[in-house]
Amino acid sequence: MMEVKVTKTTNPKVKPDPATVPFGVAFTDHMFMMEYDSENGWQNPRIVPFGDISLNPGALVFHYGAEVFEGLKAYRTPSGEVQMFRPAENFKRMNNSAERLCLPQFDVEDAVEYLRKFVEVEKDWVPDQYGTSLYLRPFLFGTDADLALHGISHATFMVIACVVGSYYKSGLAPVDMLIEMDDVRAVRGGTGYAKCGGNYAAATRAGEKAAKKGYSQVVWVDGVERKYVEEGGGMNLMFVWDGKLVTPELNGSILPGVTRKSILELARSWGMETVERKITVDELMEGCKNGTVQEAFMCGTAAVVTPIGGFVRGEEKVVVNHNKIGEMTQKVYDELTGVQWGLKEDKFGWTVKVD
Amino acid sequence: MMEVKVTKTTNPKVKPDPATVPFGVAFTDHMFMMEYDSENGWQNPRIVPFGDISLNPGALVFHYGAEVFEGLKAYRTPSGEVQMFRPAENFKRMNNSAERLCLPQFDVEDAVEYLRKFVEVEKDWVPDQYGTSLYLRPFLFGTDADLALHGISHATFMVIACVVGSYYKSGLAPVDMLIEMDDVRAVRGGTGYAKCGGNYAAATRAGEKAAKKGYSQVVWVDGVERKYVEEGGGMNLMFVWDGKLVTPELNGSILPGVTRKSILELARSWGMETVERKITVDELMEGCKNGTVQEAFMCGTAAVVTPIGGFVRGEEKVVVNHNKIGEMTQKVYDELTGVQWGLKEDKFGWTVKVD
Repeated sequence: MMEVKVTKTTNPKVKPDPATVPFGVAFTDHMFMMEYDSENGWQNPRIVPFGDISLNPGALVFHYGAEVFEGLKAYRTPSGEVQMFRPAENFKRMNNSAERLCLPQFDVEDAVEYLRKFVEVEKDWVPDQYGTSLYLRPFLFGTDADLALHGISHATFMVIACVVGSYYKSGLAPVDMLIEMDDVRAVRGGTGYAKCGGNYAAATRAGEKAAKKGYSQVVWVDGVERKYVEEGGGMNLMFVWDGKLVTPELNGSILPGVTRKSILELARSWGMETVERKITVDELMEGCKNGTVQEAFMCGTAAVVTPIGGFVRGEEKVVVNHNKIGEMTQKVYDELTGVQWGLKEDKFGWTVKVD
Repeated sequence: MMEVKVTKTTNPKVKPDPATVPFGVAFTDHMFMMEYDSENGWQNPRIVPFGDISLNPGALVFHYGAEVFEGLKAYRTPSGEVQMFRPAENFKRMNNSAERLCLPQFDVEDAVEYLRKFVEVEKDWVPDQYGTSLYLRPFLFGTDADLALHGISHATFMVIACVVGSYYKSGLAPVDMLIEMDDVRAVRGGTGYAKCGGNYAAATRAGEKAAKKGYSQVVWVDGVERKYVEEGGGMNLMFVWDGKLVTPELNGSILPGVTRKSILELARSWGMETVERKITVDELMEGCKNGTVQEAFMCGTAAVVTPIGGFVRGEEKVVVNHNKIGEMTQKVYDELTGVQWGLKEDKFGWTVKVD
C-alpha cells in the first residue's frame, strides 16, 4: 500500500442537518483521489480538499462511458465509533465492473485501507442519529484524451462523500412498483452485472415516466424474453413466497447487490430457506393475487429495505400483503440497520471500524 | 439563435502533419461550449481556447453515464473552401440520443450554425489533402452535482475538433471481422440506437479481445436471439447480395448511421435495389460460401467505407469476394469521398459550406 498524503481544507463547510438534507448533494470537506497509467500503475493516493476536478474535454469519460462506481456508507454507533459495512464486497464488485469495461483494477485490501483513512479524515461528518449516515461514493473513470476506440491507459479513482438522512423521511412505508415493459435496462452479455454509468443512463427515462405516473420505482424485466423480473430501479427485489425468501437469480444482467447477499445470508442463519431462481412477471402477479407472495421488498445500500405494496402492469394492479409492511421485511430491516448502526451484535463480522 | 462570443487563443499550437497524425488526439486551438439549466434553457454559447474543463466530482457525467455524442467532419475542397457533410443529420440524431437519456435537446438549425461558426474559427486547421479532414466531436453531458437518481437539470454542450489523416494509412484494404457471440452491445428497448457512452463502454472488451486475435473489428449480433447481425464495432454493415444492396434494418439496437443512410440514397439513385431486413449470421456465412454475398463492407464517418475480406465465427471462417475490394464498395467510397472533398458534384445538396 502506498502512503496517503493528506492536505486538509483551510475552509471547512458548515455541516448540514441530517434530518432534512436531501440525498446525494451535501458533500464533505475532502475527497480521495489517485491516478493510474498503464506504465506506472496506480500513483499518488491522496486526500485533498473537496473541489472541482479539471479534465481534458477529450477524456474518455465524457465520450465512451468509461466509468464504474460503488455506493456504501459509514455509520456512527451509540458509543460514538464510526464503522463501514462490508467495504471489501464493494471493491470486489468494482473490480468486476472495471474488468467488463476494460478499466484498470486495483488491490481490494489497499482500497479498503484508503477508504478507511478517508473516512477517518471525514469522521466528524458522520452523523450520530440512527438512520443517518455518511454515504461514500468510490468511482473510477478513464481519462485518456483520445477519441479513437481502443484500450484505456489512463484512469482516475476517487471517493467523495455526502451526509444522508433516512432514505424515507417519514419512515418505512410500502411503495407501488410499475413493471416496465418498453425500455430495457440490461441484457445478458451486456453490462447489467457491472455498476457502470451506462446502465443508469439506460434506466433514467423509465424512472422518469414512472415518477410522472406516481410510482416510486420501476421493475425491470429481462431483455431477452421480457418475461422475467430482474430488479427494481437501482435496488434488488426480494419476496417472501410460500414461506421461503425468493429472489431473481444472478444471470449477468442483474446487479449483485451487497445488501441482497447479506439478506440471503441473514435469512439462512435464521433457518429460512432461500431460493435464487427465474421469476416470471406472470407468476409474480398471480402469486400476489392468490397470496402465495406474502411479502415483497427492494433492498440496496441507499434505502436498505423498501417494502412493496403493489405491482402494476399496464391496467393490471395487484396488492401485496394488504399494502402493509411484512413481518420478515421489518425483521430484515431491523437486523441489518441494527448491525450497521452498531445497535445489534455483528455475528458475521461484516462491519469494519474506522478509528 | 444566440450570439456566439469568440475568445481567440493567444498561444496557437503547431499544426500536425495530417499524413502521420493518429486519429483522435490532435486537438485544435479552440472549443465551442454552452450550458443548459432547466430554468433558463441553453445559455452563453461561446468559442474559447481549447483547454481543460472543471467540473464538480459529483457531476452526473462521472457516475450515471449521462452523455451523448456525435462525429462528423469538415473537408477542404480543391478550391480551398471548407464544407461539412449533412451536419443537421448528426444533430437530429443527437437530439434522439438525448431524449433516450433524458438529456436536454436543442434547436438543430441553431446547432448547425454554432458548428459552422466554430469551424470558421478553426478553418486553418482543416487540412487540404484528399482523405484528410478536421474531425468534429459535438458532445453533451449532464452536470448536476447530485448522486440521487432523478432528472437532469444542468448540462453542457461542447464541440472539440482534431485533425485526422486517412483512416487507413496504407489505403483501402479488406479486413477480417470476428463475429462476437459472448458480449452484447445493445438490445431492443435499450440504448443501441442512441449514440451514448454506455454503448461504447459495453463494446470495449470485445473489441480488445478481437484486436488481440488480430481482427480489425467485431460484428455484433442481436441481444435477444443472438442470431442476427447488427453492426460492426462502431460502423454499420452493408452487403452486395444477389446484386442488391442489403443492410440490417434499424430495429432500435442499431445505430442509424448518416453514412449508412447516404449510401442507401446513393445506391437507389444509381438504380440499385436496396433492402433493409433482418440478416442471420447463418445466412451471411452461407452467402459468403456460395458467393451470393458478392461484397461486404462497413460504413461510418471516420473511415467512410471499410471493405470486409472475411468473417470468422469460432473455428469457421468464410471469405468474401476473394478478399478483394468489391466494385460497388469502391464506387461508393469514390462517390461519397468525392462529394465530401468537393471533387464530385453534390447532387443531393448534402454539403454545407462553412465560409
